[in-house]
Formats: sequence, structure tokens, C-alpha cells
Amino acid sequence: MILRLDRLLIELPRPKNPSPNSATAVQQLLGGKFGEMSTLMNYTYQSFNFRGRAGLRPFYDLIANIAAEEYGHIELVAYTINLLLTGVSKRGPNPDDAPLKDVTDARNTYHFIDSGQAALPMDSMGQFWSGAYVYSTGNLKLDLLHNFFLECGARANKIRVYEMVDDPVARAMVGYLLVRGGVHIVAYAKALEKLTGVDVGKLLPIPDISNKQFPEARQHEEKGLHRILYRFSPEDYRQIAQIWTGTHPEDGSPLQVVDGPPEGGPVPDLESEPQLTAPTGEVDPGFLQEVARRLFG
Amino acid sequence: MILRLDRLLIELPRPKNPSPNSATAVQQLLGGKFGEMSTLMNYTYQSFNFRGRAGLRPFYDLIANIAAEEYGHIELVAYTINLLLTGVSKRGPNPDDAPLKDVTDARNTYHFIDSGQAALPMDSMGQFWSGAYVYSTGNLKLDLLHNFFLECGARANKIRVYEMVDDPVARAMVGYLLVRGGVHIVAYAKALEKLTGVDVGKLLPIPDISNKQFPEARQHEEKGLHRILYRFSPEDYRQIAQIWTGTHPEDGSPLQVVDGPPEGGPVPDLESEPQLTAPTGEVDPGFLQEVARRLFG
Amino acid sequence: MILRLDRLLIELPRPKNPSPNSATAVQQLLGGKFGEMSTLMNYTYQSFNFRGRAGLRPFYDLIANIAAEEYGHIELVAYTINLLLTGVSKRGPNPDDAPLKDVTDARNTYHFIDSGQAALPMDSMGQFWSGAYVYSTGNLKLDLLHNFFLECGARANKIRVYEMVDDPVARAMVGYLLVRGGVHIVAYAKALEKLTGVDVGKLLPIPDISNKQFPEARQHEEKGLHRILYRFSPEDYRQIAQIWTGTHPEDGSPLQVVDGPPEGGPVPDLESEPQLTAPTGEVDPGFLQEVARRLFG
Amino acid sequence: MILRLDRLLIELPRPKNPSPNSATAVQQLLGGKFGEMSTLMNYTYQSFNFRGRAGLRPFYDLIANIAAEEYGHIELVAYTINLLLTGVSKRGPNPDDAPLKDVTDARNTYHFIDSGQAALPMDSMGQFWSGAYVYSTGNLKLDLLHNFFLECGARANKIRVYEMVDDPVARAMVGYLLVRGGVHIVAYAKALEKLTGVDVGKLLPIPDISNKQFPEARQHEEKGLHRILYRFSPEDYRQIAQIWTGTHPEDGSPLQVVDGPPEGGPVPDLESEPQLTAPTGEVDPGFLQEVARRLFG
Amino acid sequence: MILRLDRLLIELPRPKNPSPNSATAVQQLLGGKFGEMSTLMNYTYQSFNFRGRAGLRPFYDLIANIAAEEYGHIELVAYTINLLLTGVSKRGPNPDDAPLKDVTDARNTYHFIDSGQAALPMDSMGQFWSGAYVYSTGNLKLDLLHNFFLECGARANKIRVYEMVDDPVARAMVGYLLVRGGVHIVAYAKALEKLTGVDVGKLLPIPDISNKQFPEARQHEEKGLHRILYRFSPEDYRQIAQIWTGTHPEDGSPLQVVDGPPEGGPVPDLESEPQLTAPTGEVDPGFLQEVARRLFG
Amino acid sequence: MILRLDRLLIELPRPKNPSPNSATAVQQLLGGKFGEMSTLMNYTYQSFNFRGRAGLRPFYDLIANIAAEEYGHIELVAYTINLLLTGVSKRGPNPDDAPLKDVTDARNTYHFIDSGQAALPMDSMGQFWSGAYVYSTGNLKLDLLHNFFLECGARANKIRVYEMVDDPVARAMVGYLLVRGGVHIVAYAKALEKLTGVDVGKLLPIPDISNKQFPEARQHEEKGLHRILYRFSPEDYRQIAQIWTGTHPEDGSPLQVVDGPPEGGPVPDLESEPQLTAPTGEVDPGFLQEVARRLFG
Repeated sequence: MILRLDRLLIELPRPKNPSPNSATAVQQLLGGKFGEMSTLMNYTYQSFNFRGRAGLRPFYDLIANIAAEEYGHIELVAYTINLLLTGVSKRGPNPDDAPLKDVTDARNTYHFIDSGQAALPMDSMGQFWSGAYVYSTGNLKLDLLHNFFLECGARANKIRVYEMVDDPVARAMVGYLLVRGGVHIVAYAKALEKLTGVDVGKLLPIPDISNKQFPEARQHEEKGLHRILYRFSPEDYRQIAQIWTGTHPEDGSPLQVVDGPPEGGPVPDLESEPQLTAPTGEVDPGFLQEVARRLFG
Repeated sequence: MILRLDRLLIELPRPKNPSPNSATAVQQLLGGKFGEMSTLMNYTYQSFNFRGRAGLRPFYDLIANIAAEEYGHIELVAYTINLLLTGVSKRGPNPDDAPLKDVTDARNTYHFIDSGQAALPMDSMGQFWSGAYVYSTGNLKLDLLHNFFLECGARANKIRVYEMVDDPVARAMVGYLLVRGGVHIVAYAKALEKLTGVDVGKLLPIPDISNKQFPEARQHEEKGLHRILYRFSPEDYRQIAQIWTGTHPEDGSPLQVVDGPPEGGPVPDLESEPQLTAPTGEVDPGFLQEVARRLFG
Repeated sequence: MILRLDRLLIELPRPKNPSPNSATAVQQLLGGKFGEMSTLMNYTYQSFNFRGRAGLRPFYDLIANIAAEEYGHIELVAYTINLLLTGVSKRGPNPDDAPLKDVTDARNTYHFIDSGQAALPMDSMGQFWSGAYVYSTGNLKLDLLHNFFLECGARANKIRVYEMVDDPVARAMVGYLLVRGGVHIVAYAKALEKLTGVDVGKLLPIPDISNKQFPEARQHEEKGLHRILYRFSPEDYRQIAQIWTGTHPEDGSPLQVVDGPPEGGPVPDLESEPQLTAPTGEVDPGFLQEVARRLFG
Repeated sequence: MILRLDRLLIELPRPKNPSPNSATAVQQLLGGKFGEMSTLMNYTYQSFNFRGRAGLRPFYDLIANIAAEEYGHIELVAYTINLLLTGVSKRGPNPDDAPLKDVTDARNTYHFIDSGQAALPMDSMGQFWSGAYVYSTGNLKLDLLHNFFLECGARANKIRVYEMVDDPVARAMVGYLLVRGGVHIVAYAKALEKLTGVDVGKLLPIPDISNKQFPEARQHEEKGLHRILYRFSPEDYRQIAQIWTGTHPEDGSPLQVVDGPPEGGPVPDLESEPQLTAPTGEVDPGFLQEVARRLFG
Repeated sequence: MILRLDRLLIELPRPKNPSPNSATAVQQLLGGKFGEMSTLMNYTYQSFNFRGRAGLRPFYDLIANIAAEEYGHIELVAYTINLLLTGVSKRGPNPDDAPLKDVTDARNTYHFIDSGQAALPMDSMGQFWSGAYVYSTGNLKLDLLHNFFLECGARANKIRVYEMVDDPVARAMVGYLLVRGGVHIVAYAKALEKLTGVDVGKLLPIPDISNKQFPEARQHEEKGLHRILYRFSPEDYRQIAQIWTGTHPEDGSPLQVVDGPPEGGPVPDLESEPQLTAPTGEVDPGFLQEVARRLFG
Repeated sequence: MILRLDRLLIELPRPKNPSPNSATAVQQLLGGKFGEMSTLMNYTYQSFNFRGRAGLRPFYDLIANIAAEEYGHIELVAYTINLLLTGVSKRGPNPDDAPLKDVTDARNTYHFIDSGQAALPMDSMGQFWSGAYVYSTGNLKLDLLHNFFLECGARANKIRVYEMVDDPVARAMVGYLLVRGGVHIVAYAKALEKLTGVDVGKLLPIPDISNKQFPEARQHEEKGLHRILYRFSPEDYRQIAQIWTGTHPEDGSPLQVVDGPPEGGPVPDLESEPQLTAPTGEVDPGFLQEVARRLFG
């Protein structure tokens, strides 16, 4: 089970250029085959499905704990999309004005017809995330190899979306995720090394371009965030410390486990979009008072 | 973000009759359109996408907090499947013995080829869960109506799976979820009532058969579990108390918010299945010692 | 627009051996790529999309009118499935008896979890019918060639399902549809001939086995049903008579247009399945009277 | 079975601004999860699958009869799309001119490659309609709740497409469907009330914006169209009158059953698009005469 | 089994106007339902699945041999796409420059996120090719009719893509494929004639527009390419000569079997796209020498 | 382009226990996400999409050449399925005998309704192969890592299907493919080593069970087949020799390139299944003579 905190992993800046097509590009990092829904659900199911846990608990703890961090990643990507979509159509309650006329040409019309200018678990082409993206064979060596590959593939996607969308909110999010995804790549490389003795970390970076090339990632690495594995649990998953040992393969800095999540930032307020009746439609002046009365007496 | 606890919401009994087709039937409650992946992800995305939160925070808190409980539900269903699949093929490391010969007739071969006799996010026909099952229009009244309907549909599915699989582990799980899903139905009915003044709770139960008909549900209701809304957060989502008020529509008992999750039970140990190399293949006697040495020095 | 009649094209016998897997085989003829949903929707959309109708009205009328008959075909297949599914699980209101235990091994569990032992628009593998099965290029020659091929492919499917399920209800339905589908094959061959002068009817039968081999089809052909094109409209689509001319390519009998639908048979009553709460759950003795009072005063 | 009439429910105006992307937006109302294909097929299958009809015939009649009206809705949306697509590419028979060059940037290229500038059963993102959108559990209370929700969801989609496309043909169609869909919402609310005694109609409108806000809907409501339930059958489904009683929940006007369909309007002629060989390609001067000779002698 | 040759069927010109949306339109001819993946895989599986080959070997040889030619067609379409995508984003290694900013509005973002500006087996809407597009009933007459229809449908798609994209590389490719696809249409017509005695070739051309209307096709037909069936095998499939006999149905020229493939042209070199790290990322000056040393010593 | 040879890579034994469900299990190796369609198409598209080939030709040659071998693999798996399906239903031309009655319970009914007891590009659950299974980012390091992982995943699937189906034809096929797939794993490991200097071959075997455990694989390895890379081309792809160097990571034997394909075995004759009209239906005694006359004069 989980406890939920009403905070994001980092504080997200307000976008400078909200744009439907930018939001759509970012959707790849949420619901694409290599998006955060995939990393979240791959590790979640692998943790549920772990057989023979007794002798291999550090591996179980690692996978289960990274799964917990990934929840914060879908949240971060979803809010980035939501911020990029806020205010992109003509705001107002009168349907006769055709307030959505301009977004008829947007690449993803689900953002305006199905959701209220908000994120859905789909990719940059509007294909929905599928449970078929979860890989969980039960063979530890193969599942770890998969996870290592999955994180590298996810990194390639992040880099390309970074190159598509230069709005500050997208870059802040991608920069942070490049660093944290980088931690997961190293963690799975370490796990493979503990299991097999082979140092696959020497293959990094994959693709062969460094996080240092991305200013919004570099700033976090300069603070050492790439060498920290957070433990996202009040009491459990302590044996991650058996795997997260030694030094970082790219810069040799010492690895460190931190108990508990990062401080994080506030969950952004998303403004109403009355043309989408989100959250409500025609506002009778007395309506909200009446609701308030029913809620608060 | 979330914190993860290495406990299940209840303690699951060991199955008496592990069976591939029983496990396959239960998959509907995990990855079906009305399964727990759907309730989890519907409320999760609705909480991310909530616009105009300021005046309507009790609704946001309710949806976000129920989403958190749903995580525990996918976990419970997944472990039920995993227990029902443990030991169902001939256990042993020698492939030449055709240890999977009998399960060639099982309804779902992904359990043996893709996973290691374990759960995947798919339904009872092997169709994978899809992000298209998430509904999030941004209109609060419509989304609440959807959630009320979704929970009723989910209840119908649970009842039917209960009627298919009478193994104790499945019934313990379904019995508990009937009660907790029932809490969510009432919670969304209450939310609709706070928003509109209309008491849709009078429609219950849907389908028109009472939880009292299910012994494994009745036992929890007798302890009052159907009138408790847990707050799955250390500090947040406190305004659920503005909605979870008054009495239960079916038996008139007083509703109560409990801070924090239930005590729960241990995460079951899943035995190795060497014929599936889960978690490892041919065991060289020195292999695990060597891994242990690398892990623990 | 349409008017609906509460009658089936033929009277269906009650099944002798209701069976989930027989019903599942028959689903191919409903929701398969070459099933009746496909013929219905192909011709329906081609009629909506017909360009340059003025000079080519007989072709428009033909396609539009066959579309109307196909509606009666989905109805006939759906009721065959519903009859084959009636009574196949243990009937009774008590969930604790596990009334669905036996059907856990049925090939299609959607019949018991999603529907109330009833048809859905899916095929014999539980794949749902897709709008992608509709072909409508706007080029009349190509669309007619498609329709001719589609009907031949549909005929191959019907023959194979006939060979799978020998229950009287399935065979009565397939026998009738072989004859009526045969009329549509000839109609599209005639249309191609009117358009191009080429007599593709000489290719028939495809596959190369005669309807006379199927007793339940032969009986209808002996009554001349294979040479009749019904006009399913009170007033419209009269120019089908410009295409349905000459003789039948297989036996040389004269073709005939009949105004109006066949007499048909009653819509079967489907018994309640209380274990599925279909149509209602626990029956409080006063409940139905109360409903009746609200309905009839 | 059905009889088909060569008329539309209303007369559609010619578009002022034909446009591929407008047509694509409208596709959501045809093949989207909440489009007219869904309402048509949900009620059609629920009518086929109705168990225990004897004591509950008014509900059967209502669902079967609304299904019949929905056929006219897919027709209306399809013709709106077809009109919006007529003339949007360069018209002419010479492929070397690249007549489709401009529409290479259109959002939905299936309109130009698969169809002949015409509708297909897909949504605004080119996702095809799926049989999985049909919900039919057999439990009457649950199916009615679903239908009530489905119609509200469909209404939200219509409102948003109205806000996207302000061409007269789209607005005439959406305006009419808002009113008729509104009748269906009220009809299912009434049915739920007859079954349970609970007046869910008090929740309306959902979303919380009135049809009166849409001029093209308001004009029909002013004529009372929102209080009429047509009976789309020569002889059957008469017991709809047991449910369609009392007054309209939004304006208190008396409800009325009308026998037979509305007068309707003509089916629009769709011009040829020779660049798509729709309906024919290179026109040899003698070709059409030759076809006419074969058709009419 | 196959042998692969590092040559294309024709030499492709360099594009004059590389463009993401042109490349996307061409994808229909690769991964669409009627694209080259479909013709390749339909004939490949039909050849694997051929029953009763002994008495019908010429048909087997024909299908198997055309399958072999189709491999060259997917290659040709894929390279056309790759050439149209080369250079369409800002070339350079620095992600901070947002080199993909402009292609955020491209219709198919998979070209930039999933692939390295290169082809994938999908259609013009980004829908992936599906094995469900393979038709193989085992009934020879029906499969041949299907193939005849499939090639006509493919021809319609080629014509429409020709009308969309007038870049020389696309037109050179489509022109050639119109001719070679035309050979396959005639080949299946001949096969049907050998099997049934009916001359379906008289229906051609379908759609009713001649290849002579397309300059890039006409040039190949003037050289007689439309009357040649190549034998794509060192020693096998010789009995194609029993079917490819007589004259061409459209111009009466004599048909001819040629042993071996056409001469063909070189496989184009595709330039690096460093912004996509394709084929490598940040280039350390010594890196490629080091790789060369490891490869060549 | 390719040349096709009418031979299989090995001679396949006739099955001892033909069985629909065995054939269905084997389908996973054909159309599953990790089946031979996937390896074939991944490498085929990666070869089409290779950028910057000049300096990296050995990698291009390797990927292109392995793609060519994979074609022989889909052929081998398809014929295994076809042999396992031959004779599994009641053979005879009379539909009235219900010759397919027994296979109504088979797991995959497409084998009997869609195909003529023959293979289709789908997996063991009847899910069709999808172009979405192709991975081709253009980044060579990432694509090679993917291919290494893909082959390991494919190996896990082969092992599990081996454990399901012990019929000689399946085991002969899987045994051979374990060896040849093993060659591809090592080839991609070698390629990664040439590119990065890191010896990932030390991770093998993945899963951690040796090919030596499988008698039908061991026999080929004893003949050295695991150390041979065939060059499937008359003249091209010679630079595979720059990568396939040194020794095998599991047994240290020297690696060797062989020019040309293996000798292989005959393509099996598949008997007619008249109940499926495969290849023909009712056989008029004169029919085949007439066809022969048309073919051979």
C-alpha cells in the first residue's frame, strides 16, 4: 500500500509559451512505450511478481523502491502537460463564440474533447498507454537487463522531447528526470553487477551524450542529485543500500542512500477553463455558496 | 509523490486449489475495463487534472485520497493471482521434462510465457489494460457521475468473479474489495449530493444485491469497515471529512474518517518456480553465495 | 433514418445443446472481420458516402437496401448466441454457491463477466469488432469488387462455423444466412456486370462448394429464396430492380424483387439469469409490483 | 429487422467553410467512445440481450426504440462530415497536378487515402470505433445508469465540438442532436425513476450548462422538440408510453409520445471528386451511356 | 530461406523538398492495410500455408515468387521515407538549441522520437501495421480473389499518395510500384483464369484510371516493364511460367518471364543526424578511430 | 531486394501428436512480441534506417545479414505450426458431418475459421503481430543494446515453449533456433564490444540456463553450429567478418563466418484439408484435369 503526499518532486515554473503541440510532445514521456507510466508499472509489477525473495531481498527492495519514485515522475510529467495546456483556448463560458475554434488544428484533440485541457495516459501520437508495455518474466537477470535497457530507451525519448520543447516548464521537468532516470540506469547496472559480476555501467551514457549537455540537468548534478538514491518509504526497502554502493560510473562520485523523499515543491493550481465547463459550467451566482454551505455548513 | 509500505491491506490466505484458469478469471479485476487498474488510474489522473481546486478542495481531496487506496487494491488483486498461480506447473529445472505441458491448455498462456506464473495488467481474456479506460473531462459533476457508475460496474464484475472462483484467497480478496469499493460508491454518491443536493445514494445497491449476501464481505461490514474512509496520507487530504459525513445509505450507520491506512498484513512470499528460471535458472551451488558476498561483503 | 420492427427474419428454434463454446464460435459471424457487423457497416457507410449519385442511383439503391437487410442479420446472429448461452451456468440467486464455477473454463469469459450471458460485438477470439473493417473508397468499381470479395469471405466463415456447431439454432441461422448472403454475392456480381460488362458471377461458388450441400440452406433455396431481393423500405430504393435482373448464375432461375421484408418470426424470449442479476438481483417480493405500479399505475 | 427511409432527420444546410480539420473534429461525434456509433450499438445490443422481458417490457421497448432513433443520428453526423469534406481538395482528373498536395497537412489523411473525402467510423484522432464501447451487463439498473451516464458524456463531447466548428452545417447538426440526446438523457432518467423511485433527473443538466445556450438547439426546444419521444416503428414498441410520462425536469413542459418518425429532410447529393476517382475515374464519353444502357436498356 | 542483395530495385533520386508530412503520407504505402508490408506478408504466409501443393504447384510458385518481389517494395518505400526525412530538422549536436522545435508540429512525431528520422511499419496516421492484415484461408480460389482485390486496393492508395506528394523521390517510387503492382494484379487475374476459366482481367484498370496517366509509370511501361514477371530465385519457382502466359489485358503486349531480379540501383547513403544521436552522439575525436581499431585492427 | 530459395533451414520431422493447442503455443515464437516476426522486422528496419553507414559498415552488414537469416526463422516456425495443425480436425468434404466440432474447444479458433489449419502472424493468445514491436532509434549503441536484450527475451520465450510442447517437430525447431538465436545474441554482444570496448558477453547465458540442457540444441552445438555466422547473400555484407571474431563467450570455441546459407531441408508438403476447402472444395472429377489443361496445355 502507499501513502500519498500532496507535493511534487520539484517546483515547476509557469510556462512562458503554453501550447497544445508542446503539451502533445510531452505526452510521449507520460504514456509512450518508454514513458513514465511504463517505468512505474514495470517496476510495480516486477515487485508484486518477485519470486524467491528471501535470498534476493536487496533486488526486491531496489525494484519496489524505484517503482515508488516513478509515481512522482508521472505526476511531474502530467502537471507539466497541464500547465502547458492552461489558457491555450479562448477562455469564456459562451459556446456560441467557438472558443475552441483555434485548437481544431492542434495535433491532439483529445486534450480538448476528452479531457479538460489536461493530461491523459497516452503518447505524442494519442496512442494510449498499454499494459502490454509491462515486462515481468520472473527471471531476475533478464528483468534487470530489461530495466537497464528500458531506462536507456526512456533517456533517448527524454532527450528528444527536450530538443522539441524549450518552454521552461518542460525543460525543468526533463532536466530533473534526466538526472533521476540516470540514477535508475546506474542502479540497475549496479544490480546486474551484484548479480553477475559484470560491470555494464561502463556502457554509459546511452545514447552517447552526457547529461552535462543539458543545463537543467547539469544544475542538479552539480548539487550531487545524480548520486543519491532516495528511500521512498517510512520503514521499508532498507536493503537498497546493499546495491547502491561504490561510485558513480560517469564521474566517480560516491553513491549515497537518503532516507525519505526529497523536499519537493507545491502542487500547481490549475485555473478554471469555463469554456470546457472545467470544473463547472454556467455559474449561477448562488451555486458555489450553496455547495460551500453543504460542504462546510 | 508517494511513500510505499511493504504491507498488503489484508492478510491473504494461501489458496486451496491453485489453478491457472481461476487466476485468469481474477485478472478481470486487475486489468479489465472495470478493474482496479482503472479505478486507480481514473482517480489518479482526475486528481492531477483538477482545475479550480481552490473553492472545491474537498472534492479534490476525496478523489486524490481514494486514488491512494486503489494502489493497495491492485496490489491485493495481483498477489491473489500470484498465489493462485504458484505451483500450478510441474516444478523442476529440467526443460526436457516438459514441465509446462499441462498448462498448454490453460486459457492464458502469457502467465507461463511472458510472466513467471504471475500477474500482468490484463483482463480475463488476456486483453491488456489501456489508458483509454481513463475518464477525466474536467467537469466535476460529470466526472463524479462517471466515478459513481465506474464503481457500480466494478462491483458487478467483482460479484461475477466471486461466483466463478471459490478458492479462499480469491474470496477473501473479493469480499474485502466489495466492502471497500462499496465505501467508494457511497463516497462518490455523497460528493454528488454535496455538489447538487440530489441523493443518488438511494439508488444503491447496484446491481441490486446486497454485500450481506457475501460471507467474506459481511464479516468486514459487521466490523463496520463499510463506514470508514481511511486517509492514506501523513498530512494531506484532510478535507475528505467535509464529504464523508452523515450516515451510510444502506444501513444508516454513522460514517467515520480514520487517519492513516489500516494495519494490513504481510506481503506473501512467492516460492521459486525453477522451470521458469524464476528468479534464477540452473543453480550452481556457489552462485548464490557469490551473489551474497557481492551484496553483503 | 430507419423504422424498427420487433420481429426476426426467421423463427429460431430453441437450442438442444446450449454451450458457451458453441456461442463463442458463432460470435465470429457477428463481430469477426467478415461477420455481419462488417457487412452491415460496410454497406451503410458506402451508402452515406456515395458521390455522384445522380447518374448511378441503381447502385446507390442496391447498396443502401442490402445494408438494411444486414441489420436483420446481426439481430439473427445475436439471438442465436443468446439462445446458446441461456441456461449454461447454474441458475440461482446465491453467489456463495459459485454458480459460475464451471464457466471459468469457457473460452470467452466476457459472456459471463461483461454481458449477462449474451452477445457482444466481438469475434470467436473475443476481439472486438472495429470500425477499421469498413471499406469505402468512393470508387464504385473498387467498392463493388470489395463487397463481392467480402461476401465470399463471409461465406467461407459461415461454412466453417456451420461445421463447428451442429446445434439446430446455429444451423437454422447459418443455413438462412448462406442463402441470403448468396443473394448479396450475386447482387454485387450483377452490379459489377452492369458497371463493366464483365460477368464475374461465373466465378461462383466461392469457396467452391455449393449451398445445396447444407440441408438448412437447401430447404430455403428449394423455396426460391436465393432468387429474391427484398426491398427493405416503405417507399425508397426502387431502382434495385435495374440491377437485380436476369437469372441466377448457379441454377438459372429468374431473379425477382419483392417489395417489403419477409414475414419473419417472433423475437425469442430470453429467460432471466438470476446468478448474473439479469435483469434484476435479489427479488424482494414487493419489488416488481412496485415497479409495475410506477409503470402502469 | 428494419425498414430504411431515404431521408435524414433534418435538412442539413450546405457548409460555408468546408474544411478537412473541421470534418475531423466532427468525427468524434460519429466514432468516438461517446459518439453516435456508441449510442446506436449500446442500445441495439442491450435490446438484443434483454432477459426477462415479460415483466419489464416498457424498458425493453424504450431501449429498442431509442436505438432506432440513433441510426438516424449516425446518418446525420456522417453527412455533416461528408459535406464538410466536399470540395476541399483540388478537383480534377489529372494526378500529375498533385490535387491532394494541400491536404497532406490535414490532420486525418484517411479521409483522402482510404475514403473518398467521406466519413469512416473513427474519432477525431483517427482511432476506429470499437465494439468494446458496447456495455450490456444484463442488469437493468446498471445498464440504465450506464445509458444515463453515456448520454451525459456524449453531451459533453457535442458541446465541445460545437465550440470547435462554427460552420452552419456542423452547428445545425449538433444543435439538433443536443436536443434529441437531451430527450434520451431524460428518458433514461425516467426509466431509472420507474425502476427505483429515485429522481435522478434532478441532476440535470450535465455538464452544468443549458441547451438554451446554443442557438441551434434553442430553436428546436422552442418548438417543443425536447419533450417529444418519437416511436420509430410501424407497429411496435408502444410501451415507451409507460415511461415517457409526466413533465420535463428542466422546464416542466409535458412529455409526449409521437407515433412515427419526424418528417425529416432530403439526403444531400454529394458531388463527384474526380481526383479521387469517386465515383469513377477517367470518364470515357461513352462509358456512362453504356452503363445507363445496361441498367435501363 | 532467402539471400539478400544490397541493392534497391531502382535507383532513387534525392528529394528536392524533404518534408516530414510528405514522408508521413508515404508511410501509408509501407504500413497501411493496403501497403507493401501487407502484400509482402499476405503472399509470404499464403506460400507457407499452401495445402495440396502437388497438383497446383504453378499457383504456389506464383504466390511465393511475388512475395519475394514484395520484399524489394518495402525496401523501396522505406528508403523513400528515409530520404524525405533526411535533413528536415536542424542538424547539430547541441540539445539546448532545440533542434527539433519545428517538427513539434509535424503530423507524425514517432519519426523524431522513436526513430531517427526514419521509416517504421506504420501508416499515414501512425497506426502500426498489424498481422491481422494477413488473409490466408487456404481456399485457393478465395485467396486469389483476395489477392486480386488487395492489389487493386493497393493501387488506389498509390494513386492517392502520388497525388499528395510530388517530390521526385516519391513519384519515382510510386511510378515504379504502379507498374510492378500492375504486374501482380494481372498475375492474379491470370491465376484466377487458369483456375476457373473466367477472365477477370477484363475488369481492369481498377480504379478506372490508366497507368499511362502517370508519367513516372508510363516511362517504365514504354520499356515493357509491365509485361515482365521476374523470377526472384536462383533455382526455384519456375512454374510461374505456366501462369504468366498470353498477353497483357490492357495493351495486348506479350507477357514474359525473366529469370533473376532486375539490375536495380544502389542503396542510398543516409546522412548522420547528430541532433538525434544517429548513429552516434557527442563525438569524441578519438572515438571513431578507436572503434575502427577494434574493427579493423 | 532478396532471392528466395524453396528450402527450409533444417528438415522438419513429421509430428507425432498433432494438436491445435500445441500449434497455438508455438505461435508465440512466430507472432509474439519476442517472436521471429519481431527479430526479422527489427533488424530489417534497422538496416533500412542506418544513418552514417560509411564509417560503420560492419555494423550495418551485421544487422542486415542477421535480418536475412531471420526470414528463414519465420518460415521454420510457420511450417512447424502447419505440421502440428495438419489432420487435427475430421477430414472430409461433407459439412453436415460437423467436421470441426471438436476444435470448437481449441484455444485458437482463427486456425480453423480464418486460416486453413495454418499459421498466422499472431501469438499464443491470438494477438496479432504489430509493427509497434519494431525498435529503431538510429542510435547505434542503443539499437545494439536493444537487439541484445530482444534476443535474450526471445530465448526465454523459446525455452518456455520448449517446456510446453514436446512433440518432435516443435523440439527440433526450437532446438535449432536456440542455437541460431544464441549466435545472434553473441553477435550483438560482439558488436557492442567493438563499439564500446565493454564485454557484455560475460552476462550470458540469459536466462541463466545453458543450451546444453536442451538435447535438440546440444546436438547442433556439438557440430559447432553455435560458432558459425552464415552470410546470407551472394556478394554482399562481407564486413560481418570484422565483428564475428575471437571466441565464443560460453565455451571459448573459435568463431567462423561461412559464406552462403546452410544446406537446409525440403519444404514439407501439407496435405489437403477438404473440410476447410483447402485448397479446393467439392471436387468435380473433371475439375483438376481442366485446371491442368489450362496450366500445362
